[in-house]
Amino acid sequence: MNIEKIIDIAKKRGFIFQSAEIYGGLSGFFDYGPLGTIMKNKIENFWREFFVKSENNIFEISSRTIAPEPVWQASGHLKDFVDPITQCRSCKSMFRADNLIEEATGKFVEGTKADELTKIIKENRIKCPKCKGTLSDVRIFNLMLKTNVGPVEGTNAYLRPETAQGIFTNFKNILNSTRAKLPFGVAQIGISYRNEISPRQWIMRLREFNQMEIEFFFNPKKPEYPNFSEIAKKKLKIVTREEQKKSGKAVEMTAEDAIEKQIIPNQWMVYFMLKELDWYQQLGLPVEVLRHRHMLPEETPHYSKGNFDMEIKFDFGWKEVVGNAYRTDFDLQTHMKHSGKDLAVAEDGEKIVPHVIEPSFGLDRTFYGILLHCFVEDKKRGWDWFKFPAKIAPYIAAVYPLVSKDGLPEKAKEIFNSLKGCFGVFYDEAGSIGKRYARADEIGTNYCITIDYQTLKDNTVTVRDRDSTKQIRVEFKKLPEIIWKLTNKEIEFEKAGKLLKD
Amino acid sequence: MNIEKIIDIAKKRGFIFQSAEIYGGLSGFFDYGPLGTIMKNKIENFWREFFVKSENNIFEISSRTIAPEPVWQASGHLKDFVDPITQCRSCKSMFRADNLIEEATGKFVEGTKADELTKIIKENRIKCPKCKGTLSDVRIFNLMLKTNVGPVEGTNAYLRPETAQGIFTNFKNILNSTRAKLPFGVAQIGISYRNEISPRQWIMRLREFNQMEIEFFFNPKKPEYPNFSEIAKKKLKIVTREEQKKSGKAVEMTAEDAIEKQIIPNQWMVYFMLKELDWYQQLGLPVEVLRHRHMLPEETPHYSKGNFDMEIKFDFGWKEVVGNAYRTDFDLQTHMKHSGKDLAVAEDGEKIVPHVIEPSFGLDRTFYGILLHCFVEDKKRGWDWFKFPAKIAPYIAAVYPLVSKDGLPEKAKEIFNSLKGCFGVFYDEAGSIGKRYARADEIGTNYCITIDYQTLKDNTVTVRDRDSTKQIRVEFKKLPEIIWKLTNKEIEFEKAGKLLKD
Repeated sequence: MNIEKIIDIAKKRGFIFQSAEIYGGLSGFFDYGPLGTIMKNKIENFWREFFVKSENNIFEISSRTIAPEPVWQASGHLKDFVDPITQCRSCKSMFRADNLIEEATGKFVEGTKADELTKIIKENRIKCPKCKGTLSDVRIFNLMLKTNVGPVEGTNAYLRPETAQGIFTNFKNILNSTRAKLPFGVAQIGISYRNEISPRQWIMRLREFNQMEIEFFFNPKKPEYPNFSEIAKKKLKIVTREEQKKSGKAVEMTAEDAIEKQIIPNQWMVYFMLKELDWYQQLGLPVEVLRHRHMLPEETPHYSKGNFDMEIKFDFGWKEVVGNAYRTDFDLQTHMKHSGKDLAVAEDGEKIVPHVIEPSFGLDRTFYGILLHCFVEDKKRGWDWFKFPAKIAPYIAAVYPLVSKDGLPEKAKEIFNSLKGCFGVFYDEAGSIGKRYARADEIGTNYCITIDYQTLKDNTVTVRDRDSTKQIRVEFKKLPEIIWKLTNKEIEFEKAGKLLKD
Repeated sequence: MNIEKIIDIAKKRGFIFQSAEIYGGLSGFFDYGPLGTIMKNKIENFWREFFVKSENNIFEISSRTIAPEPVWQASGHLKDFVDPITQCRSCKSMFRADNLIEEATGKFVEGTKADELTKIIKENRIKCPKCKGTLSDVRIFNLMLKTNVGPVEGTNAYLRPETAQGIFTNFKNILNSTRAKLPFGVAQIGISYRNEISPRQWIMRLREFNQMEIEFFFNPKKPEYPNFSEIAKKKLKIVTREEQKKSGKAVEMTAEDAIEKQIIPNQWMVYFMLKELDWYQQLGLPVEVLRHRHMLPEETPHYSKGNFDMEIKFDFGWKEVVGNAYRTDFDLQTHMKHSGKDLAVAEDGEKIVPHVIEPSFGLDRTFYGILLHCFVEDKKRGWDWFKFPAKIAPYIAAVYPLVSKDGLPEKAKEIFNSLKGCFGVFYDEAGSIGKRYARADEIGTNYCITIDYQTLKDNTVTVRDRDSTKQIRVEFKKLPEIIWKLTNKEIEFEKAGKLLKD
């Protein structure tokens, strides 16, 4: 898969621009252009529909991106949200020490202490990959972006590295205002920040990025998902810890098996893992490029009862897009301790500090995955295009006059305006129909609607299907209904009107 | 109007929480709770519909909140986005010098230089308002929040004080990718940050806030809005510069007059001003609490051809919620100069640096205005409630079983689930119907749907109208259509079903 081609189209057509490009950009920062923004909004709305609104016990909040130091002291980020770094003494380049060691030795060292890493670098005589210079001792670098709020000697504050903490610090207010009973979840869509040492891979490892997170709270004495029998036979593909030592391959297992064999520690976690697997397929990703990986002990925080990353197979390999973490009561307990406030929940006559399951989605990585796996290199057609599902395509349809004369543009604009309120649609009259098809395909437009001389006679139009390039002829008044049914897969394209020969 | 009452309800019912409240909060930071987030999302979506999607030539982008120093050097924010501050030598409190002087002398000094302000403080013997201590010399304080990106000695970067600059720096990429012709606009909804010296008035003057901005670009040689005749007779209420010296009151004038008398410098500006006046009324604000104010010369940047604030009458007085600025070509010119990139547009065979009109909406202030002006203190009813329009109400409807027995909850849940996909709805069976009405009213729920014994017989339900408290009886299968027609004002409540006596 040619990611460079995709990056080019993404810039050319307005999906993704480098931030502040005219000033040389800033590493790890990318903007969503006009088409990218429509698609990003659609992804967010679809997520909200699928994970929040469809549930009766998940609430969404929107907390601020900056929080004062005590929050990060309590959460542990001030101490633990760090990377080990080393600098070349010659060229002054900065590297993540663990990455360097892994690349040089193949040894997995995430979580190893700084002095131990320094020792490994010396023992293995690892040099600067750029200039072969000697590397400095490893030191610890906090990945939170710091700022200072208020005049002169203000308050130390940090840009949040995850939206989750805003959910924990608001927990009591959320509980009181919603009168929610356990189990319930709190969701948040928003920006987070990580001062990555080496941002890389386009919109994969960013310094400012978009997250969609859920913290799902439950009574640890009642950890069951009540409708588990309905999902028990559904299948997950998991790279188990055992297989990571052997083949590295995913093992297919039912939800039931995953629980019974104690591979996944909680039924709610299984529920969310299945649901995200479904969601990503609805985004247009084939099941073959999706899997879950059980994080290794050294990748898992001490308080976790088990972390499972959902991974997508990217051009460069498998990479996390959703982190599923069983965070236990760690966060609420630590905030109780540090704030002195009671965050326990009254339940069945006793006070419970709920446990929490966190599915945390990376929106930008998801976007990357969609562009990559919806991209079709099409020599036959003569142009490349995106196979976006209608749920997330920037535009569902394009409206064209066959030619720019004889009243066709006027008629086409009239039809365009009547469709605008129904679904995402754009108008285009520049160039040949072939060129317009190519342009519409290139941004993943599901249908092209052409107004021709016959339209003026009988109010019918042609509709071209992006995926098959087949065409049907329909009455334009039926378009909203037909497009609605097509995008909801209620009818097949070929049966939606009178099929025309290519 | 009792704002304290509103702030209490906003916290109690989950509209607005103080950020990091359990740690004592951070001045100028507030979070949206579950109901606030639904409403905030609805306001954003309504704005997008009204100002972006309804137009054929306005594109939305989403740029990052952090930009490197050269962007702010070019935009002028590094030098000019400053407040004059003074500190009490005794109690060390910090103040905005211009505010202090205005409060003490009634003299308007915004834009006055630091040494001049120091002089005024001394001449007028202005003291610390807290402890009567002596005030320091005035110095200049930059309102941008600063951070440092990258490891160790990273790059200086700033959190954006407006979303607009992301539009200007992306201008060429937007132009190329959309193939747009002048005139066209670029919109952005997003977070901005200002390190206010003294945040105040709840969610009015925040350090982190939500903006909705449009930069509308046009050829300065063709400054006309093409459909001006359609809006020529529409009316604006403007506090002119002249009246600010006299009565301070707004003058009603037609769009046509505002242009002919050269009060408003551009037809596009009039178009947006009228449109925002309409929008705020659709948000539930009466026209009496809305007006535009022509900014005084000392409040207007040197490059501006005219700034008009749209103001809402708040509990504490009139305050800006939308800034309309005719920024000319200042931004594109300065970015051309600093970046060395050509941002001109080819038009009719010549290169044009477009002029720009900027309507910039403060979302949080708008939210404040809505809560304030939709709040109904209702002694007759016995509880206070919000008169939110359905467009932005957290929930359109509540579904209740009359009593929690005899199969009514099951039937009510069935109806609730069937309505969930149609509009925002919640289920409640706790307490008496009266208490449930009160709770629904308090969060501005438009309709209450009650399932009673008759429902089990004939599938009809009662629908109660929040505003009139009148009730009708309808077939529950017709609910989606009836609620849709009611919220779109296509039918009157009393005619939507069989009217019941109170």
